[in-house]
Amino acid sequence: MDSELQLIERLRAILEQDPAGTGPAEVVIASGDDAAVTVPPGATATSVDSLVEGVHFRRDTASLRSVGHKALASALSDLAAMGAEAGEAYVQLGVPGDLAEEEADELAWGLAGCARGAGVRVLGGDVSRAPVLWLAVTVVGHAGRADSLVSRGGAQPGDIVVVTGELGGAAAGLVLLERPELGAGLAAEVAEGLRARQLEPAPRLAEGAALAAAGATAMIDLSDGIASDAAHLAAASKVRLVVGLDRLPLADGLEELSTAAGMEAVELAATGGEDYELLATVPEEAAEALKAMAAPPTVVGRVEDSAGLSLVAGDGTERRNLRGFDQLRAPRSPRDRA
Amino acid sequence: MDSELQLIERLRAILEQDPAGTGPAEVVIASGDDAAVTVPPGATATSVDSLVEGVHFRRDTASLRSVGHKALASALSDLAAMGAEAGEAYVQLGVPGDLAEEEADELAWGLAGCARGAGVRVLGGDVSRAPVLWLAVTVVGHAGRADSLVSRGGAQPGDIVVVTGELGGAAAGLVLLERPELGAGLAAEVAEGLRARQLEPAPRLAEGAALAAAGATAMIDLSDGIASDAAHLAAASKVRLVVGLDRLPLADGLEELSTAAGMEAVELAATGGEDYELLATVPEEAAEALKAMAAPPTVVGRVEDSAGLSLVAGDGTERRNLRGFDQLRAPRSPRDRA
Repeated sequence: MDSELQLIERLRAILEQDPAGTGPAEVVIASGDDAAVTVPPGATATSVDSLVEGVHFRRDTASLRSVGHKALASALSDLAAMGAEAGEAYVQLGVPGDLAEEEADELAWGLAGCARGAGVRVLGGDVSRAPVLWLAVTVVGHAGRADSLVSRGGAQPGDIVVVTGELGGAAAGLVLLERPELGAGLAAEVAEGLRARQLEPAPRLAEGAALAAAGATAMIDLSDGIASDAAHLAAASKVRLVVGLDRLPLADGLEELSTAAGMEAVELAATGGEDYELLATVPEEAAEALKAMAAPPTVVGRVEDSAGLSLVAGDGTERRNLRGFDQLRAPRSPRDRA
Repeated sequence: MDSELQLIERLRAILEQDPAGTGPAEVVIASGDDAAVTVPPGATATSVDSLVEGVHFRRDTASLRSVGHKALASALSDLAAMGAEAGEAYVQLGVPGDLAEEEADELAWGLAGCARGAGVRVLGGDVSRAPVLWLAVTVVGHAGRADSLVSRGGAQPGDIVVVTGELGGAAAGLVLLERPELGAGLAAEVAEGLRARQLEPAPRLAEGAALAAAGATAMIDLSDGIASDAAHLAAASKVRLVVGLDRLPLADGLEELSTAAGMEAVELAATGGEDYELLATVPEEAAEALKAMAAPPTVVGRVEDSAGLSLVAGDGTERRNLRGFDQLRAPRSPRDRA
């Protein structure tokens, strides 16, 4: 086991090699001093996220490269949900005594890979001994003006509800990782795509920026599943969201895998979580503008007066038994075993 | 045990009640959204710090109010060491299943008390289940311009070396908390002062700003002890620091307590850590300006060519056996048992 300073040097060597290009903020002092110093271009958006061994992942089954990637990706997903341009990251690690140097390197490579993909620089961090491995990530994003960032609170009755990408892939990937035999009927590249959704999710930064530019009134990322996250957005905006479950865009291979597993595809899509797609509300007149996006989002519902979330099945009945994920209550949910 | 959302609401109710006044950055969106949104006034300084149960504190002996206070104070101390004005904080918590609601409240009150004292707003956070209690804090400070912030790297041969306040008090306070009988010879208020240095350290934000304004060329906070931290500053500045151990300002009561404990006062002062005072290098011609500070710092040494740190005893001999604290190697150092 390295000493604290040796370990920090190992991690810095990986995280600062081949740094992403010039970000939105000028970086005056990077890591190694008491604090990192930047000059942001305007407004900043800051978010934090943690992953804990034994809660969010298990070291005996998870690749630490994937753990590093996901810790940063899930934090950056919150910046995507503001429409912010990602800038800097800070990583705090709890390091158990039995973590091998190669494991620490894997973790750092996962963080570095995600950072590079998102154009983010890791500017600082902290290492403590700890009984289990944990990562606490802070990310900072930027926008020229604060009012070009999109909160959860601006949805208006009459808006349409859209989601980016496809849902359920991360949950299906987890099923496949735990029970590979269920993928026998899937094409190899489809199965690989589902596993990648689980292991290396991509924060939807470009999509978030495009939705913000198109006039999104509210936005949230789908970390815990639309059944939970759409309810948060509805509560923050003091409106009701009505979402058609049969309109949810399903990940390629999800239906086949769900059938093989004896599960319901739409339940995985609505409650599985970890897809890190974006849910946004948009004025109806902006719907045309969305079609110009590189990957146009899918219209899944509408915003109404009153309060709450209605998940409506294809036959028009409301599904009330679909719930999102609560970290302190549900230790055996898919996200826990990622 | 609260659910995740209930616990977050409890913590927010405490942390956002009576928020500090208008900070240096405009706060556009506080906690509860995907990210907090601010408009910083110029340059930002960002630092992170963690406390882990069983490593930095034990729940059976530490007051959780003190733990919350220290977690934020130690992070803010890094901003003080840049000469930054403190602005915002983000707190990530790992919460074990046996943490009582009253314990969570105590922790939040400790964080809130430190935040209020420093004029800091807690703008966001995150709660995860975890096997032990841990806190990962991110703090953001501000300055009009990046070049008014002070790094560790600018010390010049010929500069004088100064420290704020008094050293050794936090280590003495820890000795007193563990062996109260050793304080029999101390006045009650002196003993209380030493315990407070250990339990509720104050980040030296005003002192850091004053030292920056006076032209400090380099600065670092004394979290691990001058024997370690001065060496970091020397390395970053590529100079040698020569510090007179008999010139270190000793905390009131430290000598009596050291004698009672059979320890050496200067060793506690140089290696005990957690004093969170500031060490700065200042051009000799600025020495007069320091005397105008509300609490003038003490001159403890000088900067020379070559590299490293010399700790020189009163008789002129160099002490080579004094070492600072390395978190991964030294589980039984004072800081570990705070």
